[in-house]
Amino acid sequence: MKKILIVGGVAGGATAAARLRRLSEEDEIILFERDEYISFANCGLPYYIGNVIKDRQKLLVQTVEGMSKRFNLDIRNFSEVIGIDPVNKTVEVKNHQTGETYSETYDKLILSPGAKPIAPPITGLAEAKNVLTMRNIPDTDKIKAVVDSGTVRRAVVIGGGFIGVEMAENLQELGVNVTLVEKMNQILKPLDFEMAQLVHQEINANCVNLILEDGVDHFQKQGSEVVLESGKVLEADLVILAIGVIPENGLAKKANLKCGPRGHIVTTKDYQVLNAENDTVYPDIFAIGDVVEVIDFVTKEQTAVPLAWPANRQGRLVADYINGKTIKNLGIQGTAVAKVFNKTIASTGNNASQLDMKKIKYQVVVAHRANHAGYYPNSTNIALKLLYDPQTLKIFGAQAVGQDGTEKRIDVIASAMKMGATVLDLQDFELSYAPPFSSAKDPVNILGYIAENIEDGIYKTVQWNEIDEIVAKGGFLLDVRTPVEASAGAIKGAVNIELDTLRERIGEITVSKDDPIYVTCQVGQRAYLAICILKGHGFKNIYNLAGGYSTYKTAHY
Amino acid sequence: MKKILIVGGVAGGATAAARLRRLSEEDEIILFERDEYISFANCGLPYYIGNVIKDRQKLLVQTVEGMSKRFNLDIRNFSEVIGIDPVNKTVEVKNHQTGETYSETYDKLILSPGAKPIAPPITGLAEAKNVLTMRNIPDTDKIKAVVDSGTVRRAVVIGGGFIGVEMAENLQELGVNVTLVEKMNQILKPLDFEMAQLVHQEINANCVNLILEDGVDHFQKQGSEVVLESGKVLEADLVILAIGVIPENGLAKKANLKCGPRGHIVTTKDYQVLNAENDTVYPDIFAIGDVVEVIDFVTKEQTAVPLAWPANRQGRLVADYINGKTIKNLGIQGTAVAKVFNKTIASTGNNASQLDMKKIKYQVVVAHRANHAGYYPNSTNIALKLLYDPQTLKIFGAQAVGQDGTEKRIDVIASAMKMGATVLDLQDFELSYAPPFSSAKDPVNILGYIAENIEDGIYKTVQWNEIDEIVAKGGFLLDVRTPVEASAGAIKGAVNIELDTLRERIGEITVSKDDPIYVTCQVGQRAYLAICILKGHGFKNIYNLAGGYSTYKTAHY
Ligand SMILES: Cc1cc2nc3c(=O)[nH]c(=O)nc-3n(C[C@H](O)[C@H](O)[C@H](O)COP(=O)(O)OP(=O)(O)OC[C@H]3O[C@@H](n4cnc5c(N)ncnc54)[C@H](O)[C@@H]3O)c2cc1C
Ligand SMILES: Cc1cc2nc3c(=O)[nH]c(=O)nc-3n(C[C@H](O)[C@H](O)[C@H](O)COP(=O)(O)OP(=O)(O)OC[C@H]3O[C@@H](n4cnc5c(N)ncnc54)[C@H](O)[C@@H]3O)c2cc1C
Ligand SMILES: CC(C)(COP(=O)(O)OP(=O)(O)OC[C@H]1O[C@@H](n2cnc3c(N)ncnc32)[C@H](O)[C@@H]1OP(=O)(O)O)[C@@H](O)C(=O)NCCC(=O)NCCS
Ligand SMILES: CC(C)(COP(=O)(O)OP(=O)(O)OC[C@H]1O[C@@H](n2cnc3c(N)ncnc32)[C@H](O)[C@@H]1OP(=O)(O)O)[C@@H](O)C(=O)NCCC(=O)NCCS
Repeated sequence: MKKILIVGGVAGGATAAARLRRLSEEDEIILFERDEYISFANCGLPYYIGNVIKDRQKLLVQTVEGMSKRFNLDIRNFSEVIGIDPVNKTVEVKNHQTGETYSETYDKLILSPGAKPIAPPITGLAEAKNVLTMRNIPDTDKIKAVVDSGTVRRAVVIGGGFIGVEMAENLQELGVNVTLVEKMNQILKPLDFEMAQLVHQEINANCVNLILEDGVDHFQKQGSEVVLESGKVLEADLVILAIGVIPENGLAKKANLKCGPRGHIVTTKDYQVLNAENDTVYPDIFAIGDVVEVIDFVTKEQTAVPLAWPANRQGRLVADYINGKTIKNLGIQGTAVAKVFNKTIASTGNNASQLDMKKIKYQVVVAHRANHAGYYPNSTNIALKLLYDPQTLKIFGAQAVGQDGTEKRIDVIASAMKMGATVLDLQDFELSYAPPFSSAKDPVNILGYIAENIEDGIYKTVQWNEIDEIVAKGGFLLDVRTPVEASAGAIKGAVNIELDTLRERIGEITVSKDDPIYVTCQVGQRAYLAICILKGHGFKNIYNLAGGYSTYKTAHY
Repeated sequence: MKKILIVGGVAGGATAAARLRRLSEEDEIILFERDEYISFANCGLPYYIGNVIKDRQKLLVQTVEGMSKRFNLDIRNFSEVIGIDPVNKTVEVKNHQTGETYSETYDKLILSPGAKPIAPPITGLAEAKNVLTMRNIPDTDKIKAVVDSGTVRRAVVIGGGFIGVEMAENLQELGVNVTLVEKMNQILKPLDFEMAQLVHQEINANCVNLILEDGVDHFQKQGSEVVLESGKVLEADLVILAIGVIPENGLAKKANLKCGPRGHIVTTKDYQVLNAENDTVYPDIFAIGDVVEVIDFVTKEQTAVPLAWPANRQGRLVADYINGKTIKNLGIQGTAVAKVFNKTIASTGNNASQLDMKKIKYQVVVAHRANHAGYYPNSTNIALKLLYDPQTLKIFGAQAVGQDGTEKRIDVIASAMKMGATVLDLQDFELSYAPPFSSAKDPVNILGYIAENIEDGIYKTVQWNEIDEIVAKGGFLLDVRTPVEASAGAIKGAVNIELDTLRERIGEITVSKDDPIYVTCQVGQRAYLAICILKGHGFKNIYNLAGGYSTYKTAHY
């Protein structure tokens, strides 16, 4: 019989506890949770504010009582673990209800304390009454009380990450006038800029006032005015501070556990923690969830992914390890999805900005394809961007913005990545097809097809942010859309020859056969057909503008 | 320059033509189509009848004129290829508009003639005016005319395959009184019986009169009465005969090309046809699409999969091969999906009946999981069944019936299969999660988890169709649902001990520790928790009823 202590009773902690009990009926398992609630639906909180989830009870996936009984656990809520002695294998616990402090021994200790909202020392924050953050049920109750009081006409959400965007949407849907403030030039960092622009459009279309490239300078009038760095003053009855999370590492620091550059606990492949001084592994202390550094599945570098899937997965894995099973740590891709009004945004792996930062070379594939057969009602476009390694052809990552069926394509690609797929493998994925669900060539297959053509040297690609300079320097850009399309908006300097007349009008292209020609259309597909014709006529150095005018236009939105 | 002839201008043929042109601007490409239309949306036809697709024009994905121009093709519609001379490399063509017959030489010949509805010599069929089949636009125009005439109050659809079921739905939605007749004890053969029962329920709930295990004996009164083998007489203003398709192999047979047992053209891995007499390969004649035999991806045996994905894929592959590229023939899984009223039915690979027939041993995994977080509105159940090889753990196939997100899980599994995944690999698929889309443990992950527990020997499984006999023979079946649940319906002979009281009441289980115990609950999850407790108390031989009472009850629906 082992005695196992768990710190933190939600995604990672509760999952570990349940699995531990399933693997051993006799172990003593004590779960410490600082707050009242365990096992709640963090991810549902914004939707409870928005009244999408109407019943507060529903947020409690498990209760202390229910879970204790079912899994025969000793669950101690209101109990904060305030110290660890890794040598004597004890923890110090503070009971917040009684004020009492006591110590508890362990054979194994699992830390899953999560991450907390960043709250920097902004001037006026301390005095502000209406600036709130959201992590747990008490936070949510506070926000809900303010919102339900009927006094919130204007809200400011600071930070365009997933939580900020979800909060902006939910408040807006309640009829509140919402301003979303983001310091970078885009929201939702897992997306590359031009993909994020699609979300910016959606947010503006839904009357959220989106302010990019501006940050909070200070709060004034007890938070009823948010002053931005630009000097702009926003009036606010409620401010949600959602500029990101930092690992809840106080306990780890105090116990001198090794932490990474951004404060995450560093672990071995088996999730064991290390001594900060000398890197000795503490074989009986494990850390999982938002608080830890993980291995980036793609680059194998250290990173952090504060999402529920990794926390849940790791919770089960440590329980297995503690019970003597061999576990595999494959690293984390950071697959994520969010609903933003009528759009679905999904991504997996690394995006171009991340790869650029790491100086990793990649090839881009962009497609805009219908989610299901165009002739079947309500077909909508999915913008897809995939990045792969031009050497190994392994997939680095993918992003998608669309409606129905958007995250399906990312899930397929994420799974393919885990199986070590190359971009060409996507061609052979036999995906289900009937008109309401897809096309006989699924968008995922198309990504594989486009990549094959690039790898076969049929064309090279040029990106939306490169083409203007190329044209300015005299590059020849051929736009093969119809004149009607071109007249409704085109890239400056493009020469319009409609695809279906290109064979006859090929003589109008006076560029030498070895000089680069850049070709575009609405999304890249007709440009590709034009490229095949150009190749047939001896042109050798042809570029397709990835994503065509559609991507270009969105990026310049 | 090559001269390439293509027979058949729809899924396989048109795709091959487009790709051929893209790969070579100079080849001469002639596409023969017997009918008026090329490149139409076969799969959309039932929805046009049902007025879901309102505009007939939308069914024409490409026109003869548009496609000729864009791809510089010589498209000859109303032109039937009526003979092939593989030695002299010519075909004989009949122009149905002029009546003229001529011959055409080729360097390469691609056959994509498709498959046609089975129309057996049923008594009264010849005299029947209102018995129609559906394959192409003219067929559809005929059905549409009858339906639009306003005379159809009662329709009989014969055959419960995808097309039959789609037609039944579409006619029903128009307000027609529909009877669907199927000779087997279930519709939709890719599903195992208990999964098909979910669809039977849905069809009945939508007021289609479903008749199973009965076939058409004959038609009388010019088809206005359908007499079944049971003697039952159905009155019908319209009868749709949809009992399956057979390969359109007339031309192949005439040219003495090798065909398989069910009449499909046999090909090499590169889709080349063979001489029926001596198996010599005709290296310049290719066959693709519904007309060919394919390799079953799972069993590597010969099979046939008359679906659009394979036809499209093969169309591209032969074009590549003809242009000197090396191609891979990985075999076909038969991934399929259909919408049936409010349900989505999807499957990939082999099901249990198919594996049984081939005497292949398999392990079953069943799960019933919510498509997205239960606390987020409109979450619905997905019934999932997965089969894998107990030796290699490779996945044989999977089936799913549910609503939103159903085919997503099958697409993920289908892709995993193509990458050679084992069932345990599913655990590590990092799928996108936010409350509107999934749970932090996706149903696909759960399938991997259940399989791991089975492989770890925590429990064995027993199926819905085995349990009654086991109990009858004195087997101990423990039902761990609440008494309220159990009183609302339970398996005969089950002993009810609620999970959360099992630890205290363990003494009530008097079975010896080595004797088998069978455990069940609503879906199998609580039974698993009970099994863990039983194991902790020394029981060694424990079975979980796969899918629990939910699967059992549906199967006995
Ligand atoms: C509003 C919101 C929306 C989200 N939406 C999504 C989403 O859509 N998709 C997604 O994948 N992820 C989402 N997340 C992230 C997801 O909830 C986390 O990744 C996940 O919960 C992390 O699990 P964890 O176990 O590491 O930490 P948590 O689930 O945060 O649990 C940690 C627990 O430990 C307790 N604790 C901390 N220190 C101590 C201590 N010393 N003693 C005792 N107890 C302690 C805390 O009180 C806390 O309850 C969201 C998060 C929030 C806040
Ligand atoms: C009503 C209906 C619904 C369907 N729904 C789906 C679905 O939802 N999902 C799915 O995956 N599949 C579906 N299918 C199946 C799919 O349409 C076929 O698998 C696919 O079209 C096969 O492509 P093919 O090129 O082999 O044959 P086809 O697309 O049938 O094309 C063959 C063409 O060849 C022509 N032809 C035949 N012989 C000759 C000759 N001697 N000379 C000249 N021309 C000739 C025929 O006239 C025909 O137009 C559906 C089919 C039908 C009929
Ligand atoms: C509630 C909670 C404790 C449940 O943990 P859990 O029991 O591990 O997870 P689930 O309820 O999904 O059950 C999965 C288990 O049931 C088993 N199971 C599921 N369906 C089954 C079936 N039909 N037959 C047999 N076993 C089944 C699985 O194998 C798995 O067990 P295993 O891990 O031992 O293999 C935990 O998920 C939690 O706290 N969630 C809320 C917090 C959270 O995650 N927040 C972030 C997202 S909002
Ligand atoms: C219409 C039809 C002729 C089109 O064939 P197609 O041109 O091969 O297919 P698509 O229109 O999907 O285009 C795919 C091609 O465009 C390319 N492409 C798509 N988007 C692109 C983009 N953004 N940039 C560059 N290339 C792109 C792909 O690489 C692929 O070309 P490749 O095969 O040479 O690699 C054929 O699909 C057809 O006849 N369909 C109707 C019949 C049918 O399938 N029925 C059954 C289902 S209802």
